[in-house]
Order: sequence, then C-alpha cells, then structure tokens
Amino acid sequence: MFPVLGVVVALGSGMAFQAQAADAKAGQVKAGLCVTCHGAYGLSTMPNAPHLAGQPAIYIEEQLKQYRSGKRANEVMAVMAKPLTDQEIENLAAWYASIPIEVGKPH
Amino acid sequence: MFPVLGVVVALGSGMAFQAQAADAKAGQVKAGLCVTCHGAYGLSTMPNAPHLAGQPAIYIEEQLKQYRSGKRANEVMAVMAKPLTDQEIENLAAWYASIPIEVGKPH
Repeated sequence: MFPVLGVVVALGSGMAFQAQAADAKAGQVKAGLCVTCHGAYGLSTMPNAPHLAGQPAIYIEEQLKQYRSGKRANEVMAVMAKPLTDQEIENLAAWYASIPIEVGKPH
Repeated sequence: MFPVLGVVVALGSGMAFQAQAADAKAGQVKAGLCVTCHGAYGLSTMPNAPHLAGQPAIYIEEQLKQYRSGKRANEVMAVMAKPLTDQEIENLAAWYASIPIEVGKPH
C-alpha cells in the first residue's frame, strides 16, 4: 500500500504535473542583463527604472508576462521579456522576491 | 541693473514659469488611499501590488500618468489615478521617493 499511497500524495501535492518550482539562484544568473538598469541587488540605477528588490514574486511575474505579451508597453522591457519562458520568469521573480528590504525614516 | 539681472536669473532657473515644486508632505497626505495596498511607508501588503518605498520619483510619475491615461492598464489603479492632477502626481512621487530603502542578504 505504501508505494500507492506515495503516488497519491505526490499527485495531491501537484508535483506530478507542475513545472519545476521557481529557482531564485537560477533567476539571479538569468538576471545578468537586468542589473544594467535594476542594479545587482534590485536597487535601480536609473531614474526611470523601478527597484525590484523585495517585490512580491506574483507582481514581478505578472509584469514580465505583460511586457512579454505587450499588454504593458516599454521599449526596453519588451525586448528583454520577449524571449523569456514561464519558468525563467518565475525564477527571476523568485530571485528579486528573495532580497529583503527595509525602509528608513523619510527624508 | 540689479533688478533686471534678478529677473533674468529667475527666468534662467525656470522659476517664473514652473508649477509649484513637488511637496512630499502633501504627497503623504494624498497617499491616504494608497496605503490600503501599498502600505503606510510604501511597503506593499498585497502580493499583486508593488512596493513604492524609495522608487525613483520620475518612475512613479510616469506610471501614475500612464494609469491616468490608460496606457498602463490596471482596474484599481485606473480608478485611483483618474482624478489626480499633475501636481498631485508629483507630490505622491516625491513622497514615495523620500522613503529610504536598504536591501539585505537574499534569503
């Protein structure tokens, strides 16, 4: 019975059909081009590029998919997002979401 | 000669024609509704809303204007941005930009 139960548990947790889990480390590697504008740890170096450090993964995923589809329009990001797979987007989102941020006293 | 020179200097610095400078304090007051999703100090409380703390003012201005015009589409933000004046947008951008952020070691 145990082997069968094992399969049921695996199906129940969705592991049999889900894509690979998001991999923040792979996302960090994939983010090699992103650092030009968004900084090595997601702190933007350009006034028209947002900080990505600590952003919710769901938000980053949604935005990258919108850039990829053209729903969100930006010349640079359209080029960057176009070749990304869903898995790469999830990894990038996991990477930026993994960077903790703290706020200080406003200036 | 000095009074004339004074006028030239004022024109040269653009003060005679520019709108009121961005007012972060007024922006904080105006941000009363924003806190529901973006947090009191710009740290998002919703997985699909971005952190705004420390974002570059130019970026925030651009996004709010895109939400207002409909170029950037989001049901909630369309409603929020629609009534904003340029001055209010500049104030909101100044407020969020005034919140310093720091990043920590990724998880």
